[in-house]
Amino acid sequence: MLTYGKALAVLEAARAAAAEESLTGAFAVVDAAGNDLAVGREATAAWFTGAVARAKARTAARFGRPSVELAHLAEHFSDVLAIATDEAGFRPVTLDGGVPLFRDGVLIGAIGVSGGAPEADRRCADRAAAALARV
Amino acid sequence: MLTYGKALAVLEAARAAAAEESLTGAFAVVDAAGNDLAVGREATAAWFTGAVARAKARTAARFGRPSVELAHLAEHFSDVLAIATDEAGFRPVTLDGGVPLFRDGVLIGAIGVSGGAPEADRRCADRAAAALARV
Amino acid sequence: MLTYGKALAVLEAARAAAAEESLTGAFAVVDAAGNDLAVGREATAAWFTGAVARAKARTAARFGRPSVELAHLAEHFSDVLAIATDEAGFRPVTLDGGVPLFRDGVLIGAIGVSGGAPEADRRCADRAAAALARV
Amino acid sequence: MLTYGKALAVLEAARAAAAEESLTGAFAVVDAAGNDLAVGREATAAWFTGAVARAKARTAARFGRPSVELAHLAEHFSDVLAIATDEAGFRPVTLDGGVPLFRDGVLIGAIGVSGGAPEADRRCADRAAAALARV
Repeated sequence: MLTYGKALAVLEAARAAAAEESLTGAFAVVDAAGNDLAVGREATAAWFTGAVARAKARTAARFGRPSVELAHLAEHFSDVLAIATDEAGFRPVTLDGGVPLFRDGVLIGAIGVSGGAPEADRRCADRAAAALARV
Repeated sequence: MLTYGKALAVLEAARAAAAEESLTGAFAVVDAAGNDLAVGREATAAWFTGAVARAKARTAARFGRPSVELAHLAEHFSDVLAIATDEAGFRPVTLDGGVPLFRDGVLIGAIGVSGGAPEADRRCADRAAAALARV
Repeated sequence: MLTYGKALAVLEAARAAAAEESLTGAFAVVDAAGNDLAVGREATAAWFTGAVARAKARTAARFGRPSVELAHLAEHFSDVLAIATDEAGFRPVTLDGGVPLFRDGVLIGAIGVSGGAPEADRRCADRAAAALARV
Repeated sequence: MLTYGKALAVLEAARAAAAEESLTGAFAVVDAAGNDLAVGREATAAWFTGAVARAKARTAARFGRPSVELAHLAEHFSDVLAIATDEAGFRPVTLDGGVPLFRDGVLIGAIGVSGGAPEADRRCADRAAAALARV
């Protein structure tokens, strides 16, 4: 199980990666069900980035894969995504930057990053996911 | 302006107060406009407490007063609260546990606590607000 | 027809009445269909008072009577009010402070005032309605 | 801070510019948080122009830039705009005609104009923004 303490450590790893990219943004770590564990937004980042980071993380957790992989679903099976959206009670995000977190092959949560280009957000999320093994 | 670092310090003050109360919950610090700065939920707290803490904090920030003070508005002027809700784009919470944060008399944000009895949530929020002067 | 110029004059009459009552609030004048003609909010009034004043005015215009008279409908025929709400596309207000404007017995618009006690809001709205004959 | 009096003066500057363009429309000035300060609609303008002017102004205030600059966000990052919309509680407008108002580099509000072609709406909004320095 991902504790708050470990979630915050993952978030800080994402923040450190963002600082190296000169990316000012927001970071969200959620549990396997997509609920908030730790969220942080730099005060100078756009006001809506916290919500976007949370949605990316939630998408990655609920679908068990990087958020960007839902772009295919959105394009070819938009009805399915719409129904999944109704069921999930939130708006999935198909942009890059949401990454699931696994421990021994089991989904334990996800991280979402928002504030930079989608590719940069993704790099920060990947580095935070890699840091999970060390926290 | 409340930075992420200061917001996290206020959140940690609320967590420390909660630990003393044996309260397992969630904590949210938002800016003056009600947007997320730092959110933390103990993994063993109910899944929805993060959302409740965020809503309490947002309510306190947007109305500039403790969330519990909206109970009067909700009881006697439910129309007004309903319209404010539509305008604000979120569901205000009238339970105790959301407290505005002021610096030199200026509203700079708010903290919300959820997970215990409303009175206990409020005590933790008040102690976190008092800690603001030291962070 | 109520022009913008006349609507603004009615609004200013409401503001003058509010100043005499030491009421800091918002004022809205709408046409017979309930659409905005002139809206003004003192910058120091609560952020949501503009929306409340608009809703009071719209209620008075769409129902052709003071907004407070809908309280009876809300209490005894809430289904009817709910359906009317769906049809109208806005949330009617049953608080006092919305007053229809008539010229030669024909409904030409309405005024709504928000920011004080409902009775004070109503007095300002009534005085503005009386001023219509002089503008 | 933008008072009601100054907001009305900015609105009148937009109206004067519109008259020169033979543009019959609506004008809205909001505070930095996007809440109404002064709204005016010519009675002969389309009934929905008041709502559009308000949405343009609110968009410019909440995003701190001309409303038309959100077209890029809408096209390439529609997920982000959808989430921002949910958070903000209103429907942002990506058409031209909403312009932020700055004083000494600080955002203090915004103006929105609706009723003409987007480019004409924008010219009126720009002239009103320029008039801010004189009111």
